Amino acid sequence: MNDLYHSMANAVRFLSVDATYKANSGHPGMPLGMADVATVLFAKFMNYNHDDQKWFNRDRFVLSNGHGSMLLYAILYLIGYINIDELKNFRQLGSKTPGHPEYGITSGVEATTGPLGQGFACAVGMALAEAILRARFKVNHYTYVMVGDGCLMEGISHEAASLAGNLKLNKLIVFFDDNDITIDGKTSLACSDNIEKRFLAYGWNTSKIDGHDFNAISLAIEQAHKSDRPSLICCKTIIGKFSSRAGTSSAHSGALTEEDMRNMRKELNWSDEPFYVPEHIKSAWDKTTERAKQNYDKVEDNVLQRRIDKHLPDDFNVIINNLKKQIYDSMPNEATRSSFGRVMESLTKFMPELIGGSADLTGSNCTKYQHMQAINSSQYNGSYIYYGVREHGMAACMNGMALHGGIIPYGGTFLVFSDYCRPSIRLAALMKQQVIYVMTHDSIGVGEDGPTHQPIEHLASLRAIPNLYVFRPADAIETLECISIALEKNDSPSLFALSRQNVNYVRKFNTQSNNLSKLGAYILRECSGKLDVTIFATGSELCIAIEAYEKLQKMGIGIRIVSMPCWRIFDEQDNKYKSTLLVNDSIKVAIEAGSDVGWHKYIGSDGIFIGMKDFGESAPYKVLYEHFKINVDHVVKYVLGKIR
Amino acid sequence: MNDLYHSMANAVRFLSVDATYKANSGHPGMPLGMADVATVLFAKFMNYNHDDQKWFNRDRFVLSNGHGSMLLYAILYLIGYINIDELKNFRQLGSKTPGHPEYGITSGVEATTGPLGQGFACAVGMALAEAILRARFKVNHYTYVMVGDGCLMEGISHEAASLAGNLKLNKLIVFFDDNDITIDGKTSLACSDNIEKRFLAYGWNTSKIDGHDFNAISLAIEQAHKSDRPSLICCKTIIGKFSSRAGTSSAHSGALTEEDMRNMRKELNWSDEPFYVPEHIKSAWDKTTERAKQNYDKVEDNVLQRRIDKHLPDDFNVIINNLKKQIYDSMPNEATRSSFGRVMESLTKFMPELIGGSADLTGSNCTKYQHMQAINSSQYNGSYIYYGVREHGMAACMNGMALHGGIIPYGGTFLVFSDYCRPSIRLAALMKQQVIYVMTHDSIGVGEDGPTHQPIEHLASLRAIPNLYVFRPADAIETLECISIALEKNDSPSLFALSRQNVNYVRKFNTQSNNLSKLGAYILRECSGKLDVTIFATGSELCIAIEAYEKLQKMGIGIRIVSMPCWRIFDEQDNKYKSTLLVNDSIKVAIEAGSDVGWHKYIGSDGIFIGMKDFGESAPYKVLYEHFKINVDHVVKYVLGKIR
Repeated sequence: MNDLYHSMANAVRFLSVDATYKANSGHPGMPLGMADVATVLFAKFMNYNHDDQKWFNRDRFVLSNGHGSMLLYAILYLIGYINIDELKNFRQLGSKTPGHPEYGITSGVEATTGPLGQGFACAVGMALAEAILRARFKVNHYTYVMVGDGCLMEGISHEAASLAGNLKLNKLIVFFDDNDITIDGKTSLACSDNIEKRFLAYGWNTSKIDGHDFNAISLAIEQAHKSDRPSLICCKTIIGKFSSRAGTSSAHSGALTEEDMRNMRKELNWSDEPFYVPEHIKSAWDKTTERAKQNYDKVEDNVLQRRIDKHLPDDFNVIINNLKKQIYDSMPNEATRSSFGRVMESLTKFMPELIGGSADLTGSNCTKYQHMQAINSSQYNGSYIYYGVREHGMAACMNGMALHGGIIPYGGTFLVFSDYCRPSIRLAALMKQQVIYVMTHDSIGVGEDGPTHQPIEHLASLRAIPNLYVFRPADAIETLECISIALEKNDSPSLFALSRQNVNYVRKFNTQSNNLSKLGAYILRECSGKLDVTIFATGSELCIAIEAYEKLQKMGIGIRIVSMPCWRIFDEQDNKYKSTLLVNDSIKVAIEAGSDVGWHKYIGSDGIFIGMKDFGESAPYKVLYEHFKINVDHVVKYVLGKIR
Repeated sequence: MNDLYHSMANAVRFLSVDATYKANSGHPGMPLGMADVATVLFAKFMNYNHDDQKWFNRDRFVLSNGHGSMLLYAILYLIGYINIDELKNFRQLGSKTPGHPEYGITSGVEATTGPLGQGFACAVGMALAEAILRARFKVNHYTYVMVGDGCLMEGISHEAASLAGNLKLNKLIVFFDDNDITIDGKTSLACSDNIEKRFLAYGWNTSKIDGHDFNAISLAIEQAHKSDRPSLICCKTIIGKFSSRAGTSSAHSGALTEEDMRNMRKELNWSDEPFYVPEHIKSAWDKTTERAKQNYDKVEDNVLQRRIDKHLPDDFNVIINNLKKQIYDSMPNEATRSSFGRVMESLTKFMPELIGGSADLTGSNCTKYQHMQAINSSQYNGSYIYYGVREHGMAACMNGMALHGGIIPYGGTFLVFSDYCRPSIRLAALMKQQVIYVMTHDSIGVGEDGPTHQPIEHLASLRAIPNLYVFRPADAIETLECISIALEKNDSPSLFALSRQNVNYVRKFNTQSNNLSKLGAYILRECSGKLDVTIFATGSELCIAIEAYEKLQKMGIGIRIVSMPCWRIFDEQDNKYKSTLLVNDSIKVAIEAGSDVGWHKYIGSDGIFIGMKDFGESAPYKVLYEHFKINVDHVVKYVLGKIR
C-alpha cells in the first residue's frame, strides 16, 4: 500500500512541478513537501463525491498555505474535478487554476486562500458551522486544513486557534507543514515558538509525525478522529522534497530547472512526458473516489435545504412589512444600533440561519437578543457566539460559516476596529459570501473614548472594497430597509455603520410598500421651486441636514436633501436615475462625520464637504460636533457663502 | 511598608473613581484592580525624572489596556506630571486626560493605546529599540507594560510575543491583569487559553502572583529583572476591587454610584472630599520620585543626540543630490521597488538610525542590503530585522521603535497586506511617528499571484488615513525624491507603494536641484498650445500616460501630464498652485491601476477614470493590463470619445 501511496504522491509532485515549469511561476516547494500527507488524506480519509461535488455532508478541505495551490489542483485533477488542460493553464487568465485557490472558480476549492492564516481561521468557521448544524440536522463531517509556518506566525492563527480550543471543535483537523523554511530562510531567523506547546495551551490535541511516513500520517488522522478537541498534526516535511533545492528557501517559489526535473524523474523512475500520469496510478486515484463517496447522502430536511439554497423564508416580505409598520407607527428617535437590534431581534426568531456574535461588545453592538442562547463547547444548538476580543478571527470565522452553507453569520465590533478585520472582509467580498458586519459607534459620535475609537477614514476605505455593500442608515426605517437588502444579497457581504448616539427619526412619509434604500440614494426632502442646493448626507448627519434644510428653506433657498445609505447601490442605478440627483446646477453639499475621500464623485470637485479633516478628540459627542463644525450653523454658513 | 503601599494604591483608586464619576464615563474597574501592581512598580522600580521627563534612559511604561487610562493619569498626578485640574477634566475637550492615553498630549504617556494589543506590541518595539541602541550607546532601561485579557486575545499579541521571545528581549516586563473578566462577562465565555503555557511556548519567562500582594509583586519584578528572556507576570486581580461591582463585568466601564463610592470610602477609611489625597500619602508618592531619578544621566554621544533630536546628518542633501545625479546619468528602467533598494542601500550606510526589516519578503521588498547584518538574540548591533510573517506585529513594533527614539524604522510587505497592518499604521499617523512602510507589488502588476495578492482599494483606503503620506513614485528619480521627503517628515508616517514590474524612466529633464515631488503633483509633460486634456497618473501608470500623450499630441490634441506621487502633499499646496493644475476647461483623465475612490476630487465628477472596477485576476501582468483595459489604446479611445 505504501508503495502505491508513494506513486500516487509522486503523481501530485510531478504535476505540480510540470505546471509551475510551464507557467514559469508558482510554488513547487510546498506540493513536493506535502504530497505524501495530502495523498493519504484524500486517498484514505476524505469524504467527497465527484458526481455531486456540492454534497453538503462532504468533508471540507482548506489549503491555508494557498501558494501551494498546485498540490490541490493536482489532486483535483486526479480525482476528476478538473481536466489536464487546466493544469497546463496554471496561472493563466480565465483558467480554473489561478495562482492561489479561488472559491467559485474551481469546484473542490472550498475557500480562497493565499493571505496567510486566513484559510486556517476560515476552516475554524467551517468546523463551527458544522457543529452548529450537527446539533440540529443530519450533518456530520470533518474539516481538514493544511497550514504552513506563515499561517501560524500570523496573529489571526492565534485568534482562531484559541476560539476553536474554547469551543472544542473536535472535527477540525489541521496539518502543519513543519518544514522549518520560510521565504527569508530558516524559520528560526524569526521564530522559535514551540508550536505543539502553543496549541496545547489553547486546549488542542496535538501530535508530531514524519510527514513522509505514510503509516504515521494515517495513524495520526485516526487518532485525531477520536479526539474530543481540535487536532494539530505537526508534519515534519522537507520542502521541495526530491528536488535539488530540497530543504532550502529557494524551493519555496519559482519553477525548477529542466535539469532538476530530469534528475527528479530519473530518481523517482517517472516518465519524461510532462503532465503524464501512468495509467495504473491514475486508476489507483480513480479507485479512491469510490471509497470517498461511500457515505454519500442527500439532505432530507426542507428547512436545511432552504438554508443551503440561500432562500429566504416564504413570509420574509410579510415580516419585513410588519416591522416597517411598527416602526412607522412609533417613529422612534433612537441610535441606529438600537434600530438594528430592534429589527434583528424579530428576524432572528424567524430565520434560524442567522447566527450572531460580537467581538466582546455584545451589549454595545446590540447583537444578542433575549431569545438567543450562546453557543459553547457543551451546547452547539445556540445561535450566538461570544467571539472574544478577536475581531479578525470573528470575521474570518464568519467567512468559513458562510462558505460552509446553511448559515448567515452576523458579527459586531466598533466601526474603528473594522481595520482589524479588513483582510477577512476583503476575502468575503472576493469570495462573494453573505457575511453581515455590525459596526457600531460609527463616528465622532463615540464621544469621550476619543480618537482611537472614532472612525474617520473607515467609511471611505470600506466603500473602496469591491463587492462590499456599506450601509449607513439614517434612522430606524432605513436600518430596516438596509437589513432587508443585506439579507436578500446572498452573493455579497454587507457592512452596517451604526450610530452610538440617538438620532431623529427622519422618514416621516409612509413608504410601507417601497424600499427606498434599494436606490442607494433618494430624495428625502424635495425642493418645491427652483433647485439651488442639494445636500447629500448619510446616517446620523441626516438630522443636521434636515435642520439646515428648514432654515435655508425659510430664507427662500430652493433646497433638496438626498439620503445616501449605500453608495455602491446608488452607483449601480441606471444613468437616468443617477442624473436626476447629480446632473443639475445646484450647489452640492455633503455632510458626513468622516473623511471626504470619495465624496467628490457626487458633489464634484467644487462641492462643499462638511466632515472630518483629521483625527477626532476625546469629549462628549455634542461638544465634538460643535468643535469640528459639523453642525447646522456651519452648513447654513457654507451654503450662503457659496450662493451669494 | 505594605500599609503605605496600600494607602498609596488607594490614592490611585479614589482618583480614578472620582474622575470617572465626574466625567460620568470611563473605566474604573481596571484601575481599581491594578492599582496595587502599579503602585509597587512606580514607587519602587520605575526610573524616571519628573524634572527631565524626556530623559532618554528612563524606563518606559505602556498601558496597553488603555481604557484604564485613569490608572496612569492618577499616577502621573501623584508623581507631579499633571495637575489635579486635569483629573477633574478627565475625558473633556482639550484636557491632558483624554479617554484613552494619547502620546503627545500628556507627558508620561509613552504610547497612544486603546485598540487592544497595540500597546503590548508597541512595547516590544520599544524594548527592541533599547536593545539595538544598548549594543551601541550608553542606553539601558526597562520597558514595562500592562495588558488585559483583551490585549492577549488579539492576534497582534501573538505576533509580538513570538517576536520578543525569538529576540530574547529580556528587559521587557509585562504585567497581565488576570482578572477573568471581559466586557461580555467571564473570560471563559470565549477563552480558555492557558496563558502562562502559551508564553512559555514563545520562550518567555513567566510567573503567576496575587496582584494584590505587595511582596509578591515586588519579588516577581525582581525575578523578572534577572531573566534572560522577556517576562510575563500574571497578576491575579479583582476587577473593580473594593467597589460593589468587584469581580464582575459591570465594573469594567461606567462611573460608580454615589452610594458605592461612599461605601468604598468608609471601608478604606478615605476622605469624603473628591480628588483629595491626604498629605502624608501625597508626600509618600513625592518621596518615590526622588528614588526614581537616582540613576539619571544625560546623553553624551553626539550621534545619539542627533538621532534623538530627529536631525538628519549634515551631509544629507549632498548625499541625496549625488544619488540623484547617478540616477539621472543612468536613467534606469527598473521596478520602483528596485529604485527604493538602490536609494536605501546608500542611505542606510550614512544613516545608522535606519533600521530595516520585512515580514518575510526581504528579497521581494528590496529592504536588506549587503552591508546590513541581521539583528538576533545574540547580536543586537545589526540593522535588519527578520520580522517573520507578522505584518501587524512588524508595524506595531516599528511604532514602538519610533516612539522610543533614536531609530527611524522601515519595514516591508506587499501592498495588499497593508490591510494586516492598518490598526498600527493608523496609530503611527495619530501619534505622528516617523515610520516608513515599504509596500511593494502595488497593483495588478503583481501578475500571476492573482486577486488575493493584487491591491485594488488599498491606495484609496490608505490615502484616507489622516497624516499618513502615501507615495507612489513613477520612476527612480521620483522614488529618490519621495524617500528624501519621507526622511525629512519626522512627524508623520510615510508609505511607499512600489511596483513589482519594471517601469520606464520618465523624468528625462534635469531637476537636480529641485525636488518636484515636494509639490505632491507636478507637470511632467507640458502642453504647447491650447490645453484640451490633462492626464493625472501615478506610479507605473505614468508609462501609459506618456505613450498616450505622444499619440494624442500627434493627433493635434493639446495635452498635459501631471504626475501625482503624493495626494496629501498636493492637497497641502496653496490654492494658486492647485488651481494651475485643476482649474481649467481641459478634459481630465486619471490613470491608476486601482480603485477610483478619491480621484474625482481632482478630475471632477465627469472626469474619466481608467483603472480597476473590481478585483484582479491571475495571469501574467501584461495580459492583465490589457484585460482590464488599462492601456494606451483605451486612454486614447476614451479621450477621443469625450473630445469629439
